[in-house]
Amino acid sequence: MSKPNRQMNLNAFLMNVGHHEAAWRHPHTEPQNITDIHYFKKLAQIAEAAKFDSLFLADGLAVSQNIKHGAYIGLEPFTLLSALAAVTEHIGLIGTVSTTYNEPFHLARKFASLDHISKGRAGWNIVTSGSEYEARNFSKNGHLEHSKRYERAREFLEVVTGLWDSWEDDAIVSDKQAGIFADDTKVRELNHAGETFHVQGPLNISRSPQGYPVLVQAGSSEDGREFAARHAEAIFTAQQTLEEAQQFYADVKSRAARYGRNPDQLKILPGICAVLGATESEAKEKEAYLNELTVPAYGLNQLSNMLKIDLFQYPLDGPLPALPGVNEINGNKSRYQLVADLAQRENLTIRQLIHRLAGGRGHRTFAGTAVQVADQLEEWFQTGASDGFNVMPPYLPGGLEEFAEQVVPELQRRGLFRTEYDSATLRGHFGLDRPANRYASAGVSL
Amino acid sequence: MSKPNRQMNLNAFLMNVGHHEAAWRHPHTEPQNITDIHYFKKLAQIAEAAKFDSLFLADGLAVSQNIKHGAYIGLEPFTLLSALAAVTEHIGLIGTVSTTYNEPFHLARKFASLDHISKGRAGWNIVTSGSEYEARNFSKNGHLEHSKRYERAREFLEVVTGLWDSWEDDAIVSDKQAGIFADDTKVRELNHAGETFHVQGPLNISRSPQGYPVLVQAGSSEDGREFAARHAEAIFTAQQTLEEAQQFYADVKSRAARYGRNPDQLKILPGICAVLGATESEAKEKEAYLNELTVPAYGLNQLSNMLKIDLFQYPLDGPLPALPGVNEINGNKSRYQLVADLAQRENLTIRQLIHRLAGGRGHRTFAGTAVQVADQLEEWFQTGASDGFNVMPPYLPGGLEEFAEQVVPELQRRGLFRTEYDSATLRGHFGLDRPANRYASAGVSL
Repeated sequence: MSKPNRQMNLNAFLMNVGHHEAAWRHPHTEPQNITDIHYFKKLAQIAEAAKFDSLFLADGLAVSQNIKHGAYIGLEPFTLLSALAAVTEHIGLIGTVSTTYNEPFHLARKFASLDHISKGRAGWNIVTSGSEYEARNFSKNGHLEHSKRYERAREFLEVVTGLWDSWEDDAIVSDKQAGIFADDTKVRELNHAGETFHVQGPLNISRSPQGYPVLVQAGSSEDGREFAARHAEAIFTAQQTLEEAQQFYADVKSRAARYGRNPDQLKILPGICAVLGATESEAKEKEAYLNELTVPAYGLNQLSNMLKIDLFQYPLDGPLPALPGVNEINGNKSRYQLVADLAQRENLTIRQLIHRLAGGRGHRTFAGTAVQVADQLEEWFQTGASDGFNVMPPYLPGGLEEFAEQVVPELQRRGLFRTEYDSATLRGHFGLDRPANRYASAGVSL
Repeated sequence: MSKPNRQMNLNAFLMNVGHHEAAWRHPHTEPQNITDIHYFKKLAQIAEAAKFDSLFLADGLAVSQNIKHGAYIGLEPFTLLSALAAVTEHIGLIGTVSTTYNEPFHLARKFASLDHISKGRAGWNIVTSGSEYEARNFSKNGHLEHSKRYERAREFLEVVTGLWDSWEDDAIVSDKQAGIFADDTKVRELNHAGETFHVQGPLNISRSPQGYPVLVQAGSSEDGREFAARHAEAIFTAQQTLEEAQQFYADVKSRAARYGRNPDQLKILPGICAVLGATESEAKEKEAYLNELTVPAYGLNQLSNMLKIDLFQYPLDGPLPALPGVNEINGNKSRYQLVADLAQRENLTIRQLIHRLAGGRGHRTFAGTAVQVADQLEEWFQTGASDGFNVMPPYLPGGLEEFAEQVVPELQRRGLFRTEYDSATLRGHFGLDRPANRYASAGVSL
């Protein structure tokens, strides 16, 4: 049997009624759907029918947008993904959860529970939270400084993975006759005592089908790259150009190798917001139409938050003012850099920049035919820029349906994407190893 | 049209493979089911077909049992109830969540999300956590003192309900033409600054179908009764005798009236673990068989934890030693008192006490025919001892099936329990008012 082609991984990144900030104004969307499980069930079924690797949910812990003109509010990831687990069979379920405003015991437990409920389809997108708005919802005086957040994240992950290992896979024996429920030599306290956390354990749920959910990471700063290279199994990253994406890919894969890891066990998945049309000009018109629907006050608020500068005082059709240096940014550092570079490289006015960011908030937007989109994806995939993509439909459900009906079959024809699921877990879809239990052969007792 | 009889409320309290501590050894249970969503889906469908008001899940944040001989581990309530919401239509979904080891923003958000996902079927059983084992999983040096836990709970509830009111019901207008997503005069910051919490808000999810999930409370101490009388809409309580239950019922209802509340808006639901048989003697034999399956070391561990005294050093067939006073108990005070009273009233040996607690951990156990069980429930319901019951099947799914097939029809014949759902929400099933938004008519702006 010949070795099959290397396969692309595709996540369906679901957000409200679409990723474009004006999606809610599009005639084909129904914004009241954002809290309706039937709507998300439909999206999940479209994505599963198209054999996507996973559903991907972003998250934030505060309303920081101009709510008058649009807002990222809606269902919480654990509850939504659990509900979707019950109505799907194959597709992975990746939820974003912050290490900054959570307790490791709660998080370890909920992900283990989701992994059990979905029979091995859970993934955790690890973020450290980037805004002071979130701090204010959690009784914190200020937002933790960037490198401190990553320190906390590293310890958090140590605790969480320790809790996932606190029950060996075969700890529950259920010997009714002998009255032995669990082999208590295979269940252990963690007794973590670190800088930030003191956690005894064991977890109050058994080890889940995947051992750990797939560990995804979504920061591309220096701290973020190091964290990903050591710990992540997939990276969701924003890359505007092929060259930058290739540099990022090579950099992170080589960092992983330096940590003694197999670089194939770390999937790099840039975001792509594809606006599809029957012809290129139709696609461009659709994109322009969406951009016309944007409300400047909304985009200005978003961009001001991102760049930490009040842009309302500058002319919309003038250039960006001088920006603070990246060292002064205590939020999403890599996204800040990307936006600053983009504005400078293309010499954009504030309005033009808002339009460029409206589709994907810094992720790449591309308008074209299904063949053109597939060409772009194939080029990035084949030239060392990505292992697959986080697909960010501009409006929903239409944009996902179009991608599923037009782009996926094109990728399948090219032998780049599965036509059937051949595994039952998200690790299986991504080709990732199941993590061994750190205690399983060590013979350490409780 | 004549006024229908007052109707009983029945929750199906699901726990592992049954409430009896030896349920996992029973030949009709499959202990590996405790992390299997298909098992819980089956239980939910049995309960929904029998028109139960709700599924009820307890919770704890640590393993404190003797895991060798049984353990309450398994799926986490938010994830499990969300999954069950997706595969049920009518039944309520009550989850226990502690105010001691959670953040109000997370909890408010997840319950609002569950209430949206279930279209108005969520309930929150408010507990303050009773064990130092839990403290050790959350980086706490010690367990908060009992009255401090209730102080925290009161402030926690103030924050959570404030967040649920932070979006008015009609705040989202979605006016595509005008570009107005939300009426921002109907979305408010909370700006809570209290003893324990500082929370800005608003919540990042809109107000849910029920406004608030149904607020359930499960402590029966002095602090617990006061909390329930002020805030709860249903109380889950352990009562061993009719007289005690009547006293508790009258006490809590009159406390609610003193707070200016309509006592009908506070449902009192004692737990009942019914062991059913075709004849009384068959039922007693089934109960005795379950008790024979208990492992003394497990029950001794549980009882020692409950009474805060090491019982392993005393003869199993001898009396309880002298106990500490209730003031020294910093856990579940009312359960401690109940167990101490039970042992004294019936002059029980340690082994006998373990057997008496094996079925319901202090909740009433009754073995008899379906008619006898229905008689007991009717008596309590008609003589001012309860508004309904938390039904705690000794083993699952068999015990729930028996209750649904035998006791429910008997209650329906007597006109005491619904034969069809006539409402779509848990508030509707319980006959509870939907809470008004505190800001809706006040005209306070953000």
